[in-house]
Amino acid sequence: MIEGPYLLFLGEATDPIAVKTARGVAQWRPENCLGEHALSGCTISLGLPAMTPAEAAAKGAKSYVLGLANAGGTISDSWVEAILDALDAGLDIVSGLHRRLSSVPTIRERAEMLGRRLIDIRHSDVPLPTGKGKIRTGKRLLTVGTDCSVGKMYTTLALEAEMKKRGISADFRATGQTGILIAGSGLPIDAVISDFISGAVELLTPDAAADHWDLIEGQGSLFHPSYAGVSLGLLHGAAADALVVCHEPGRPHMRSLPHYPLPDLKETIEANLKFARRTNKNATFVGISLNTSGLSLEDATKLCADTEQNFGVPCVDPLRMGVEKIVTELESLTRP
Amino acid sequence: MIEGPYLLFLGEATDPIAVKTARGVAQWRPENCLGEHALSGCTISLGLPAMTPAEAAAKGAKSYVLGLANAGGTISDSWVEAILDALDAGLDIVSGLHRRLSSVPTIRERAEMLGRRLIDIRHSDVPLPTGKGKIRTGKRLLTVGTDCSVGKMYTTLALEAEMKKRGISADFRATGQTGILIAGSGLPIDAVISDFISGAVELLTPDAAADHWDLIEGQGSLFHPSYAGVSLGLLHGAAADALVVCHEPGRPHMRSLPHYPLPDLKETIEANLKFARRTNKNATFVGISLNTSGLSLEDATKLCADTEQNFGVPCVDPLRMGVEKIVTELESLTRP
Repeated sequence: MIEGPYLLFLGEATDPIAVKTARGVAQWRPENCLGEHALSGCTISLGLPAMTPAEAAAKGAKSYVLGLANAGGTISDSWVEAILDALDAGLDIVSGLHRRLSSVPTIRERAEMLGRRLIDIRHSDVPLPTGKGKIRTGKRLLTVGTDCSVGKMYTTLALEAEMKKRGISADFRATGQTGILIAGSGLPIDAVISDFISGAVELLTPDAAADHWDLIEGQGSLFHPSYAGVSLGLLHGAAADALVVCHEPGRPHMRSLPHYPLPDLKETIEANLKFARRTNKNATFVGISLNTSGLSLEDATKLCADTEQNFGVPCVDPLRMGVEKIVTELESLTRP
Repeated sequence: MIEGPYLLFLGEATDPIAVKTARGVAQWRPENCLGEHALSGCTISLGLPAMTPAEAAAKGAKSYVLGLANAGGTISDSWVEAILDALDAGLDIVSGLHRRLSSVPTIRERAEMLGRRLIDIRHSDVPLPTGKGKIRTGKRLLTVGTDCSVGKMYTTLALEAEMKKRGISADFRATGQTGILIAGSGLPIDAVISDFISGAVELLTPDAAADHWDLIEGQGSLFHPSYAGVSLGLLHGAAADALVVCHEPGRPHMRSLPHYPLPDLKETIEANLKFARRTNKNATFVGISLNTSGLSLEDATKLCADTEQNFGVPCVDPLRMGVEKIVTELESLTRP
């Protein structure tokens, strides 16, 4: 469990994509983000107050968050001083990078000396069970997709916000690094040992009250030649009652694989439903979420209406249209 | 890397499937197996001479092999004394369990003190790439199944033996602990980080001569709620030209999951073919391998004949009937 509020570290970033994790946290948990801390050379801001680790600690910050993506997932030498300052100021360090914080001797020693926590959210040391495929109490929704990076996390968070607004008991269950920072907990599903994928998801979404919804962040695609194993383990482990499929119309090929076309919505829905029903025979699709950023609002609205017609479930772009229609569909499922 | 001959440890096993690793090694590499060592309560024997670690060491044994499979891959407390005895006797310890031998402090300390090796074949420290889904040169066959432990490794090894007998260039590619002990190399696919399943298989079966066959040991089942992610990553990464499906008729439920029935052969073949063709559009089934140990030879022969009729490919029990028919089918595939 990661303690908030956070001070978000931006390093020397000059590329908006490099801080997309930090941006996700600032967008979805503004109340948890006290400020941002950049090094000289950084040209990016998230619009949060700039402050040093000591200033943030004085205002109540508990964690210094490295919400950065860089090639190789390394910890840059130029960041070490800032990290040590944050430890000195009394903050835990939270990192979504591949390289473990404790692998840098000066960071490890300082943290040990001061009794601070080094939290590597890409690594989980929780002992995992194998999947059991047992029916659990409570309700579960999983977002699935035609590809990676088609809006699964965004859609899941939007559903959580709308459900909470309606007074429905619901929790976002994070399976990726940005999601874990937003939720403050979760399991990095693409980093677990492959024998335990579904078991990890079962652990993440245990028995719950009958009217509670766990909203599980999906990963990858059953049709992605690099990552489909993760997606299938996630699908079996989720034992979802409800599925929402995410897609970006017009994307030319599978992410990072120019020789692979995207599957269409129909085959994506059919394949996911088939395997979802292996662990929950009542699994059903309740919505379609499109990333229509490449279309005019008029074209997007028409596409959503047509898609809704074709598949018989609500279709929205969550960023442009919200997810109210999907939540209404979900409520109609559970109405006695 | 693993020094023979072996003393095979059977623990307190009472279930033949629990010692399938030890049995596989004894069967496929008898010249490498000096004896077996069981604890009190064990009701299983491999038919090898029973001996203590000290007796085995006196006869020339070099390694004490934990050839056991249990859910979760833990090291039982009751095994620790036997492992320490083996270290004292001068043997290396070889384990195919998930939990690292060195994670048990008394084992680690004794091995360090005595200068013995602790070899965890389930852990690979080779850096793995993500899957690329690119067509590779050479031919590949993958065994798939309706469940775990239905004969995938046995069938693959039998195919290798028969193909080598016919002068076909072929290599067994091990993906599990027993296979690795038999082959002397391989990649423990269920122990890799989930993001790298298909990438690991691509690394295991690289570009090869046009007429060379890599015979890839399959794992699990697309329909097993605990392990299907591994099976799907393996299927995508193998990019197999030829598939053989393995099944045990009459098995009452999925291994370790009494509440799950087995899928039938038809749906197993269809689902595997669908996903196999994502990375190799020419993928095709060339045979069915049945474990008919629960049937009379007469009933088994009739079942294989009926199954062959139904599916239009050769069907054999490799133990009772050999795999000649499947290799002949495979040769007809590649004949110009």
